[in-house]
Formats: sequence, C-alpha cells, structure tokens
Amino acid sequence: MNAHILTIGDELLIGQVINTNQAFIAERLNSIGVDVAFMSTVGDTMDAVVGALRTGWESSAVTVVTGGLGPTHDDITRNAVCAFFRTDLVPNEEVRRHIGELTKARNLPWTAAAEDQSLVPRGADVLPNPVGTAPGLRFSEKGKIMFVLPGVPYEMKEMIDGSVIPFLAPLAGEQVIRHRTLLTTGIPESFLAAQLGNLNQLLGGASLAFLPSPAGVRLRITVHGGSAAEADGTVRDVEGRIRAKVSRYIYGTDEEDLETVLGRMLAGRKLTIAVAESCTGGLIAHRLTNVSGSSAYFERGVVTYSDASKTELLGVPAETIGTHGAVSRETAESMASGMRKTARTAIGLSTTGIAGPAGGTPSKPVGTVWIGIADARGTLALKFDFGEGRARVKERASQAALELVRRRLLSLE
Amino acid sequence: MNAHILTIGDELLIGQVINTNQAFIAERLNSIGVDVAFMSTVGDTMDAVVGALRTGWESSAVTVVTGGLGPTHDDITRNAVCAFFRTDLVPNEEVRRHIGELTKARNLPWTAAAEDQSLVPRGADVLPNPVGTAPGLRFSEKGKIMFVLPGVPYEMKEMIDGSVIPFLAPLAGEQVIRHRTLLTTGIPESFLAAQLGNLNQLLGGASLAFLPSPAGVRLRITVHGGSAAEADGTVRDVEGRIRAKVSRYIYGTDEEDLETVLGRMLAGRKLTIAVAESCTGGLIAHRLTNVSGSSAYFERGVVTYSDASKTELLGVPAETIGTHGAVSRETAESMASGMRKTARTAIGLSTTGIAGPAGGTPSKPVGTVWIGIADARGTLALKFDFGEGRARVKERASQAALELVRRRLLSLE
Repeated sequence: MNAHILTIGDELLIGQVINTNQAFIAERLNSIGVDVAFMSTVGDTMDAVVGALRTGWESSAVTVVTGGLGPTHDDITRNAVCAFFRTDLVPNEEVRRHIGELTKARNLPWTAAAEDQSLVPRGADVLPNPVGTAPGLRFSEKGKIMFVLPGVPYEMKEMIDGSVIPFLAPLAGEQVIRHRTLLTTGIPESFLAAQLGNLNQLLGGASLAFLPSPAGVRLRITVHGGSAAEADGTVRDVEGRIRAKVSRYIYGTDEEDLETVLGRMLAGRKLTIAVAESCTGGLIAHRLTNVSGSSAYFERGVVTYSDASKTELLGVPAETIGTHGAVSRETAESMASGMRKTARTAIGLSTTGIAGPAGGTPSKPVGTVWIGIADARGTLALKFDFGEGRARVKERASQAALELVRRRLLSLE
Repeated sequence: MNAHILTIGDELLIGQVINTNQAFIAERLNSIGVDVAFMSTVGDTMDAVVGALRTGWESSAVTVVTGGLGPTHDDITRNAVCAFFRTDLVPNEEVRRHIGELTKARNLPWTAAAEDQSLVPRGADVLPNPVGTAPGLRFSEKGKIMFVLPGVPYEMKEMIDGSVIPFLAPLAGEQVIRHRTLLTTGIPESFLAAQLGNLNQLLGGASLAFLPSPAGVRLRITVHGGSAAEADGTVRDVEGRIRAKVSRYIYGTDEEDLETVLGRMLAGRKLTIAVAESCTGGLIAHRLTNVSGSSAYFERGVVTYSDASKTELLGVPAETIGTHGAVSRETAESMASGMRKTARTAIGLSTTGIAGPAGGTPSKPVGTVWIGIADARGTLALKFDFGEGRARVKERASQAALELVRRRLLSLE
C-alpha cells in the first residue's frame, strides 16, 4: 500500500517553517508497512491545492493532507477538497457540539468562525480532533482513501495516532517494513563502501543506504516484505555481516549518539572523565553533559583558550608551548595528563587545534587538530585534519575525541 | 520567476530525517524574489526521480534538486539527470583536480569512487563544491534552469549561497520581496504582542510574523511589491516603530546570533570574559567560541560539574555550597567572582541550576537556574525558571546568560 503526503501552507514555501509534519506522518505510516512514495508541498491557493489533491489521489492508494483547515481567510483546504470531490458543505451536529464544548471550556463566545467550522463536506467521514476545533476528514472511493487533517502539529499528531493509523493498520497488514541503522564514525563514505565490498552478497534481499554527516556515516538497512519474523531475521543477518567487516567503526545504532554510548560505557565501568578543550571550545563538555546522569562520570571540564589558562589550569609548561606551539603533540599530551591529574579522574581528554577561519599556517593549516588522551595505560595524542569551516571543525573534532575514548576503552586503537 | 524544489532520498520518505534543506533553499530563493510554488520529495529510484525532474522542469522556470549525488550505489541522481536530459557522463578535469586536492589534504588514496565522481553530465555547467567531493550541476535550456546539488546540508548551503543565488539574483530582479527579522529574547510572545499594540497602525502595508523558539521570539517584517526603494523604506519605517516600543528586548537582526552580537560589543570595548558553567555544561563557552576571532575576548572557561571543581577551580568555599546548596544565589555569585579573579578578566559569568530530568526538589524544581555576573561594578545573580527538558533548559539558560552580559554592558538592567 503506497501513500502520498501533501502539506499545505505559504509558510512552508517561504522557508519560514521547517516541515516536521511530513517526517512525523512518514515515520508513522512506515511503521505499519505503508510505503510513502511521494511528498509534496503547495501554498494556500485553490488551483495549487486542487492540482496537488489530484496528483495524490491518482498516484497513491492513500493520500494524507495537512494544513489550511483553520478558521482564517487563508485556510482554503476544505473548499479545495469540496471542489476536487465535487461536493458541498453541510452542517454536522457532532462537530458543532464538540466546538461548543471547547469554546465553553475556554470561556470564549460562539462566533461566526465557530459556526463555519461546524460545516463539513458532504460524503466525508469526520475524524474527531480531541485538542482543537477543526475536524479531520476522511474520503473513501473505489479503494482509495484520503485523510485531511489540520496542520497544527499537536492536533495533527493526535489525529494521526488516534484516527489514521488505527484505520490503515488492518488494511496495510500484508506488508512488513523493517529498518535498522548502524552508526559509524572515523571512516569516509567511499572507504566504508570499499570495506563492505560486494553489496549484493552482503545484503541478499535487503537494501542499504549510506547517510553521511559531520558526525560520521550512518548505514541504514531496510527489509521489505515477508513475515515480521522473517524480516527481523534478515535485518539481523545483514547487520551481522556488516559488523563482521566494519565493526570497529560502529559506535551505536538507530537514534543513539556517541555521547550517550560513551556515557553508558563510562558509567558501566565506573570510570570518570575530565576534558581540557582548546579548539573545541566547550563542545565536548556540552555534548557529554547533554546526557542525563552524566554527573556520575563527568567530573569537570576546562576551556583553555589562552596560553596562560593552559599553564595555570593544567600545568602545561610555558616552555612546551613556546618550543612546540599550542597546537602540537606535546601540548595536547600535557593538557590531557594535566587534566587527569588535577581532576583526579580515570581519563583526561584534550583538544588543541586551529578551528579557523584565521590562524592557519602552511605547516599547521586550518583544520589541524591534536587530540590527547591520558589514562591508566599512559598518554598519547593523535593528529587530525578536519578541513575548513569553524563549526564543522569543532563538530568533527568533538566526535573524533569522543570516539578516541570509546576505542581506547575497547582497546580498538 | 517561480521555482520548484525537489529533494531526493529514502531517508526523507521514511521520516528518518527532517527536511531542513527544503526550508533553507526556500528561504534563500525567497530572499531574492524567486517564488517557490511547489516542493516535492521522492525516494532513490530512477523512475521516481526522472518523473519528479520532469514535473519540476515543466512547471517552473527554476528547479533546484538536492540529494543522491554521493559516491555510493544508492546515489542515482546524476544518472537520473542524464536520463532526463538524454546525455551521458564525461570526465571533467576541473572536478578531478579538486577531488585530488581534497583527498590529498585528507591523506586519503585516490580510489575508483573518486574517479567516478570526476564524471559530469555532458552539457552541464559545473558548480564548485568548496567543502566536499561531489560537484553541483547547472542545466540551462530554453530559458529554464535546473540546479542539482548534493544533499549534505553544509555542502548544499555553501553551493546555494556560492553559486545558485549569485546566478539567479540578477535574473529574478523584477519582483520585490523584502524581509527583515528583529531578534528578541527575554520576553514571551504574548507579552511582546501586547507591548506592540495595534498591528494595523504599526505595519501599514507590511506583514509581521511572530516566530518563537527557545532562544527568543523573532519578529519577521515582510513587504511585497513596489520598487526596491519603496519596499526598503517601508521596512525601515516599520522597524523604527517596532523598536520604539520594544527596543530593549531586541539584541540583533536577521541571521545574527547573540554570541556574535555580544562578541562585537566585547571586542569593541576591549573587554575580556571568562565563564564558569555548571548546568549549562560548556554550552556558553561553545557558543562564544563559535564566533571567529573570539580568542581576542574569551580568555577561558570552566565546567565545574562537581562540588570539588567549584572549590578548586573557582575558590567557592565548601561552606557556601554546604549551607546554601550548589544551586543558589551565593554559589552563583561566588562562581562568577571567582572566575573573574582567577582569569583576571573584565567579566566573570556563571550558571548553576537543575537541567533535569532528575535532581529537582519542591523548592528547587527542574529548570531552576541561577546566573551570576561579576564585573568592575560588582557581582550579582538572578534566578530563572526555564521549565522542563534538559536540552531546552541548557539552551535557554545559555541565552539568558549571554543576554545578561549584553544588558549589563548597555546598562539596560
């Protein structure tokens, strides 16, 4: 069963609002085995909406429409739906009573807008809106189904979960879709592909998507069809074959992030960490402390931007900075071991580099970052080149630093 | 001049990724007077992509396509474009050289994937990708234009601003659209609306959107039509009338952020700052150091998560924490003045609070945050309630802390 999602609103076309409704609806339809084949967005004009309704209706078994059902002049979806289905508006007592209760509960008077919202297209089934005044609509004809919902996210969500999914789930029952995402970091997309080798052998009937970002490349396995047990089994088999080839680069799965994975590892091993940051400027501490419960293992951090602060807070000798420079193996190692010593933690982690855009030299160009780590086994530092773009250098350096800790805990260096 | 935005990727159709590219491109096109009439999304299959390319090309003067240009098997956009324009792939020396330089800078070998990415469709103009390997493409035929860009957001953004907008702006000249956004913080949407009063009087022919976010409420003025000079004049007048009513809450305009505004103020006054963070966990230091040139005024930061670190790094007396608690006016003030003293900066800034979800008590619920500031005039701390949600508490606390410094510099308390 395939579906088309149509979102309506000028605010989307001018980029004022990011279309989160689309992703929410897609995720929910996907979860019951409905394949979203196409998503489109048009503005608040009659021709555009009617045209898009026709495209959705003709191309897909299910069309889900959101937006433009409110009470103001720019809400034209209901009239467009009437035009498309060649029907008219009639009063609906159930809707009228619901709006009456809501306006009363909110101490608002009954207005012409409320009266108008009590009208629904003849032939449509009404979907209750538990949290707002605009009802949803469902049209069924010749095996095709169209849902029309308000665009306000929390109203839309209530109605997707309350009316749309329960209606479609039994109809969509025949098709199973399973997804599994493996999160990698520290290896470029093309190298990952090379290490995975022949994809046909690896995947069998599953499909694999490479999704790159500054944090790393996500590998998404998708299996369509068969029974739920078969699909789960196929996903497990493919995951196993991928892990057999690139397991060292995989730090987590699905929606996890590296700070959550690392936090779980530190907490499980009862290890503490302290972070001394120069070029990452506090981002590593920020990421580690985004995890609820991080105070159990994150002891402290320092952002030593000035040379004086590196010496005063971490004991980095002024001669080390003078001889080798602030961006050097020696300084990174001294920062990491100084952090570990002053904070009395199991692990000291450090970064020092050139985030840019200024400050680069031929021998130390923008993007050069040294990452240091000190633990019971000793102290070391690694050099990276993270390219250009201040925000991206900080993001990539923070990811590489957290990954260095993860690999060291697993002896994967 | 109207436009169609086509985004490609299975990850969008399953709801795994929210389509932020669409909104970014729409906003940029809009800013130069190009009307986005339609946006669509299809998955990584040849038929779907070719069909969507046709729809875009036939319905609009400009089609902007993103996604599916990477080096792996699921990246089919380049082949789909070749099929649609009935052309083939040819080696491009310029692209080959650029990829060569990038792989060399990153110490990577030249691979078959790199060789493949050096091919471009015959007849396409190449758009440089300064931050990645996949080049962008431009097709022009019979007055119609199609841009094909990678889907990785930071690559796409570089190319929209570097190649697409500069090319289209002179062609789109006939229609005037002006936007101006005033950035406020520290005042809720409904209070801002009340202070602005009668919008018809305030706006004349302009329109105004209220865009709330955890960082504050953005006020977006839009003027359509007339000459460029008239539209600019109307925007200026409306901005002046808004500023006359709520200027103290406005920290910046358009795409600025508070850390950039504050950084300019500190640099201009030759003042330095050091930050002692507990509940914000490094986010304030991260934001301040996101600004290029921040090393001129950001001296250091500490993330004192443990009580011991507050005492050791900032000299907060253990009795202060013992008597009043780590989340208290006394601790916040002691952190701010201790930070200023040890770093020898003009300003010391501090945060201490309960980001949650755990750790709240009836008298200090989750969201309670004390923000302290110490400068030549003295030391003070203010209490805030930022509600629930760990990430949102951190974000709102960091915004309020930076805003406290801004207001103090302007004597706006």
